[in-house]
Amino acid sequence: MEPFEKAASAIDSLFSRTSLPEGVSRVVPAGQEGDAFWPAGFTLSGINAGIKPQRKDLMLLLCDGPASSASVFTTNLCCAAPVELSKRHLAASSGRMRAVICNSGNANAATGAKGLEDARRMAADTASAFGISAEEVLVASTGVIGQLLPTDRITAAMPTLKSASGAQHWRDAAEAIMTTDTFPKFFAVDVALSGGTARIAGIAKGSGMICPNMATMLAFLATDAEIEPELLQEHLAAANAVSFNAITVDGDTSTNDMAAIMASNRGPSIARGSEDSRLFGAALRSVMTMLAQLIVVDGEGATKFVEIRIEGARSDDEARKAAMTVANSPLVKTAIHGEDANWGRIIAAVGRSGASFIQEELAVWFDALPILKPGLDAGFSEEEAKKVISKDAYTITVSLGKGSGAAVVWTCDLSNRYIEINGSYRS
Amino acid sequence: MEPFEKAASAIDSLFSRTSLPEGVSRVVPAGQEGDAFWPAGFTLSGINAGIKPQRKDLMLLLCDGPASSASVFTTNLCCAAPVELSKRHLAASSGRMRAVICNSGNANAATGAKGLEDARRMAADTASAFGISAEEVLVASTGVIGQLLPTDRITAAMPTLKSASGAQHWRDAAEAIMTTDTFPKFFAVDVALSGGTARIAGIAKGSGMICPNMATMLAFLATDAEIEPELLQEHLAAANAVSFNAITVDGDTSTNDMAAIMASNRGPSIARGSEDSRLFGAALRSVMTMLAQLIVVDGEGATKFVEIRIEGARSDDEARKAAMTVANSPLVKTAIHGEDANWGRIIAAVGRSGASFIQEELAVWFDALPILKPGLDAGFSEEEAKKVISKDAYTITVSLGKGSGAAVVWTCDLSNRYIEINGSYRS
Repeated sequence: MEPFEKAASAIDSLFSRTSLPEGVSRVVPAGQEGDAFWPAGFTLSGINAGIKPQRKDLMLLLCDGPASSASVFTTNLCCAAPVELSKRHLAASSGRMRAVICNSGNANAATGAKGLEDARRMAADTASAFGISAEEVLVASTGVIGQLLPTDRITAAMPTLKSASGAQHWRDAAEAIMTTDTFPKFFAVDVALSGGTARIAGIAKGSGMICPNMATMLAFLATDAEIEPELLQEHLAAANAVSFNAITVDGDTSTNDMAAIMASNRGPSIARGSEDSRLFGAALRSVMTMLAQLIVVDGEGATKFVEIRIEGARSDDEARKAAMTVANSPLVKTAIHGEDANWGRIIAAVGRSGASFIQEELAVWFDALPILKPGLDAGFSEEEAKKVISKDAYTITVSLGKGSGAAVVWTCDLSNRYIEINGSYRS
Repeated sequence: MEPFEKAASAIDSLFSRTSLPEGVSRVVPAGQEGDAFWPAGFTLSGINAGIKPQRKDLMLLLCDGPASSASVFTTNLCCAAPVELSKRHLAASSGRMRAVICNSGNANAATGAKGLEDARRMAADTASAFGISAEEVLVASTGVIGQLLPTDRITAAMPTLKSASGAQHWRDAAEAIMTTDTFPKFFAVDVALSGGTARIAGIAKGSGMICPNMATMLAFLATDAEIEPELLQEHLAAANAVSFNAITVDGDTSTNDMAAIMASNRGPSIARGSEDSRLFGAALRSVMTMLAQLIVVDGEGATKFVEIRIEGARSDDEARKAAMTVANSPLVKTAIHGEDANWGRIIAAVGRSGASFIQEELAVWFDALPILKPGLDAGFSEEEAKKVISKDAYTITVSLGKGSGAAVVWTCDLSNRYIEINGSYRS
């Protein structure tokens, strides 16, 4: 399957498990050049700058005026130069940005002072090519750690990047940020607000080194809504907590993660505390959740998409700890891969997670099928269980029987392909 | 290679990296039936009771009098019935035990009230077969979670277990506790004390669900020294912290883990606070460290043994956190497997570990070869690095440049074989 067909099929499959909030509707791309998928006020571009052989590796997202901007970044202490620089630029421009420039193929991480200089040069090149200020540019990089950026190639590619930009070029942009992703990730919704319809669209990349603690991968979002940077930041952070921070492929938190959103302020206005604000937040969460789930579906070597749902915890925080421990357990992930109804590994993971419970009160379901009932009663039918776990996507629910704390995270299986990909990634 | 040859070769290889404390010497088994490997005062037995097809699955370690005993157990909230029972027995007998009975092939975990009853029956059967009290019996189980023990088979096997017991049968015992282990694990030392020579010997099993938080697998140790249970418990806990709690195969903490030691009190006496006590502790640590390292060498699918050494941390605790994060990172473990000098993944793991540092002050070595020098200078020779990382065993050292905190943990690579083993373990 072609990457875009694969993406469309993954989105359709996830969308069948999803219910959008009222007033929010999915935007389906027309499947042809120039389809109106991206919000008004933005142009995009994705080209090959020679950082990677042949494949697209340089992405631009440009707003035609100062965009209200917000961003969340990796919490890894070894954060990359572009993360450092982007934080400074966001602060310096008081959240009014014009562009995101992003390369794949090189993370510009663990590159020291030279790396920061190189990130600055990327911002300066973008600024001079597009007639904006360097401090209005967010810079992002993804790829191998510890190698210097081929900045000359990026500088040389600016004219091509400019001539290839346009509102309709979001597909190129989505492709240009891919690393070991097997398909580009994109999603958009319209949300009906009191002042008219706002659109929110996003592209993302994921694949390896995926585990929260912040943004967890790269995602670039845009909306035509009119919104202040501070309020946009609040919405982004809230949505991030239950989308990108609720996924895990391998428990590894990258050095380069970033999720950024720009609002072109051309559409309906969103006031703090309004019903419109609530709706906008829900719509943003829908887009980010879909992008996050696409990252899991396309996790390195993933063949299964599994929702881990913890209920009845003493607190949401304990539920989240338990959910993440199950979602990251190599023994659970290999059992998912092997289609083995190994509930023992699931409760063993919950048992070491730090969440409190009494084992006799645990209950486990695979989708709606009870697997373990309180009293450690595992009298389920292996045949019925197999029907669930042989599916590409299903939900594992564990109830701790202690309170009303709950959490949901999404994970994938651990397969031989993960080992193959990561045993030879750098070379 | 035969399992015992494989074990001997693994021990020799690890021993070449080890320096024993002064006064401590390795006991090499003579390689024939009846060799004098185990301390005086103990008999052992290992037989097939029909829990597993064909292979040995029932182990006995018996002391000819009340042994001073100490034990550490899993911290997993889903702890197994035998763990629960053994804790009660240790308390009830004030640390004076006579026997350990252990089966493999079934964990008797998540088995509720019936599981506890079954563990009690194992203790009672052992007590009546060997003329001791049930409360003097430690019970251990390892294998699949959530299935009831075939207790009738264990009861029926008692006469065979008794007739097959003897001081020379430690090899059978070491085999009988294996699950997915590919070789039995054993080690013994002599330690010269003021009152004569004491011997400390142990057997262990590991393989999957290996990550600390307590004992982390099964290990049964014995000594002929004369020592009070309380002091023995202190020595066991201290040695456990830097041996079994310093290894990880997959980050998963089992429901059944236990390390137990019995002292037959026939040999030299050890008084609290004495030089003998210090020596005994060091000797015990040597045995437990070797057993722990053997577990890593024989980790599921492992092809590499890697020591992760963190130095220059703000505290030992932070160093340990950083070491464990590196040791459990799937990206680091696949890079080790692929013999890729991917130092970026190592510092990225340290960066998300919670340990504090400034990335420009990090330094990384593979054995004695500097890979990353402060200032993020990675000007190493790939050829020289390859010489180190293509070895079966080596050390990765990371200096954080913050203080004098240090920690060492041992880990293995993550290979396709791990996925194969765990994708089909239960069936």
